[in-house]
Amino acid sequence: MPRPIITLTTDFGQSDPFVGAMKGVLYSVNRDVEIVDISHAVNAFDTLDGALTVANAYAYFPNETIHVVVVDPGVGSARRPILVRADAHTFVAPDNGVLSLVYERSERISVRHIDAEHYFRQPVSQTFHGRDIFAPVAGWLSKGVEREKFGDEITDFVRFALPKPKPVDANTLKGVVMKVDRFGNLLTNVSPQDVPEGRPFTVACGKANITKVARSYAEGAPGEPFVIVGSSGWYEVSANKAAANRLVGAERGAEVVFRW
Amino acid sequence: MPRPIITLTTDFGQSDPFVGAMKGVLYSVNRDVEIVDISHAVNAFDTLDGALTVANAYAYFPNETIHVVVVDPGVGSARRPILVRADAHTFVAPDNGVLSLVYERSERISVRHIDAEHYFRQPVSQTFHGRDIFAPVAGWLSKGVEREKFGDEITDFVRFALPKPKPVDANTLKGVVMKVDRFGNLLTNVSPQDVPEGRPFTVACGKANITKVARSYAEGAPGEPFVIVGSSGWYEVSANKAAANRLVGAERGAEVVFRW
Amino acid sequence: MPRPIITLTTDFGQSDPFVGAMKGVLYSVNRDVEIVDISHAVNAFDTLDGALTVANAYAYFPNETIHVVVVDPGVGSARRPILVRADAHTFVAPDNGVLSLVYERSERISVRHIDAEHYFRQPVSQTFHGRDIFAPVAGWLSKGVEREKFGDEITDFVRFALPKPKPVDANTLKGVVMKVDRFGNLLTNVSPQDVPEGRPFTVACGKANITKVARSYAEGAPGEPFVIVGSSGWYEVSANKAAANRLVGAERGAEVVFRW
Repeated sequence: MPRPIITLTTDFGQSDPFVGAMKGVLYSVNRDVEIVDISHAVNAFDTLDGALTVANAYAYFPNETIHVVVVDPGVGSARRPILVRADAHTFVAPDNGVLSLVYERSERISVRHIDAEHYFRQPVSQTFHGRDIFAPVAGWLSKGVEREKFGDEITDFVRFALPKPKPVDANTLKGVVMKVDRFGNLLTNVSPQDVPEGRPFTVACGKANITKVARSYAEGAPGEPFVIVGSSGWYEVSANKAAANRLVGAERGAEVVFRW
Repeated sequence: MPRPIITLTTDFGQSDPFVGAMKGVLYSVNRDVEIVDISHAVNAFDTLDGALTVANAYAYFPNETIHVVVVDPGVGSARRPILVRADAHTFVAPDNGVLSLVYERSERISVRHIDAEHYFRQPVSQTFHGRDIFAPVAGWLSKGVEREKFGDEITDFVRFALPKPKPVDANTLKGVVMKVDRFGNLLTNVSPQDVPEGRPFTVACGKANITKVARSYAEGAPGEPFVIVGSSGWYEVSANKAAANRLVGAERGAEVVFRW
Repeated sequence: MPRPIITLTTDFGQSDPFVGAMKGVLYSVNRDVEIVDISHAVNAFDTLDGALTVANAYAYFPNETIHVVVVDPGVGSARRPILVRADAHTFVAPDNGVLSLVYERSERISVRHIDAEHYFRQPVSQTFHGRDIFAPVAGWLSKGVEREKFGDEITDFVRFALPKPKPVDANTLKGVVMKVDRFGNLLTNVSPQDVPEGRPFTVACGKANITKVARSYAEGAPGEPFVIVGSSGWYEVSANKAAANRLVGAERGAEVVFRW
């Protein structure tokens, strides 16, 4: 039997001892787990950024992986901790929408309100549920405790929709930059299905008016921004060996207008 | 038998190959260990920051965990490498006070001067004892070599006290910001025991005069700083979904005055 | 049998889900591996920085470790994926020179062009070969698939030489700062063999003219830059508990002149 895998996605950063404390709690519940960091650099308090981060990584893990997602601006408030089964993956997270994209992409989901407090670390602090609730629950799940034991199913869980691109007229679509990656690529919320197939189009973003659609980064000429379908399936504004965000002068939240 | 756990806390950052080299040495001594990063972002050369970091994480790990702590401004000087047993945890570190908080929080400690050079990687460089001394010693410890084999007990090891809050008068205590975390929370050196129970108090920090004491971040109103008992037991100056350090205009080392 | 070790060295950073996706793919091919991060903070698109990073860490790992190196400005172009055996280590990387220092330091190397597409993740994206080619190939290697199965040997692989120090006259050598580490130490491309043994020398770097050669950081006086043989064997311009780059006013690419 392989060791169960537990992934972590948080906005805790890696300079404080928060992630270390969570891992210590996990190993204290189950010594025989594989803990994998997805990212701890989600923008602080930013559930949309957290939703994008986990959604673009979890499906590459084997079935039966347990994913702990802690982007939790409401820690200590009445927001519920939840346990989610989505197809063959299991998630432990606050009920604040951070799993919205997981819900959207799964065929079958079941969401439970975790209220079995005997699985929590005691006393539960009001400021660090990652350590006191989410980590120990994931640990017990990895030991084989059945999901039903943690709480009842709910249907009124929180989910938000990603910002959708808006049609301006029959030939124009207005989207938005959802994220800028490490290389400066601008991840938009527009995907190939949103644009008529076979029609050439232009993309206005920042101070650039882009006509080139590339199939790979290497196709771009130096200093020339282009549009490309990125690794997560959306159009990105990119550049060859250069940071597109600086090149076109746009950041997260910037408008992106597709015209055909 | 579960695999032994070795944690790492350093000021090496993660952009250089230092941490990778240490892990390679560890696996070369013992293939069958679990290596866990606590943090590699301790402020460079800052033993107080290192002491706070390891102290707020180690106790969450299972008994018999080995903790390697390398914040080592005196590498290459006469400062000794030490092996510490503190209750049921084992530490390998330079003797420069970086384990001071571990000493303070443990009921029983024993400190040894590591001088059994046949456990070191040879030749020992003058600039990287993490790779050449601390990692191999931790590796051999994890293989079951007895602590006595690494050197004799000493009693004149280095320890420093955390800065203590100072009484100004019968109703006033002056503390300090020891650390700013990833979210901008200001961790003070004042804890609930330092303030008379049941007496309302105010906290002056930066340009703010704070009257609200919250039990959770979610209790705070937007843009309003408050005081809260943080996850490591000290008072923190915080804000709901905002960076308190920017809000009140204070950083590490700033004065914090409690009045009641 | 111990679990095979796979190390990762990339320029992906840790804020995007790229590294997590690669790890998910690795575990999906082989649940029973040990994945170790060397660094994900190689300068974006910088094959020299990647070459230095992996070269200063890989040899500390046990024989038979598999090293995945993805610094890949040419992703999607015709540059080949390669599988390299260098002494007792195995590497998977793009053929762009990022392994040049590994070639230089190994006694025996064999380089193969990976073209056995049935070991790739399908469909192969044009923008993320780390996930779709390099990770799955490393996973299958760790399962014991023989190297010959991935493609034929080639001899026209890409390699570059490190910048070499240039003699200016019989008593002067001009080198360069190859890297600045986390502490501000300036790693030069000059090593002790380049300077006549036993002759005192001075080093001009930035605005400093350095006469002191130290054996350890602790030997340096406060605020005084010095030269030291660093942990990777080159001379470094350093300072005791201070950032030498700021002290002398030099960064990567700066000239360093040795005179004797």
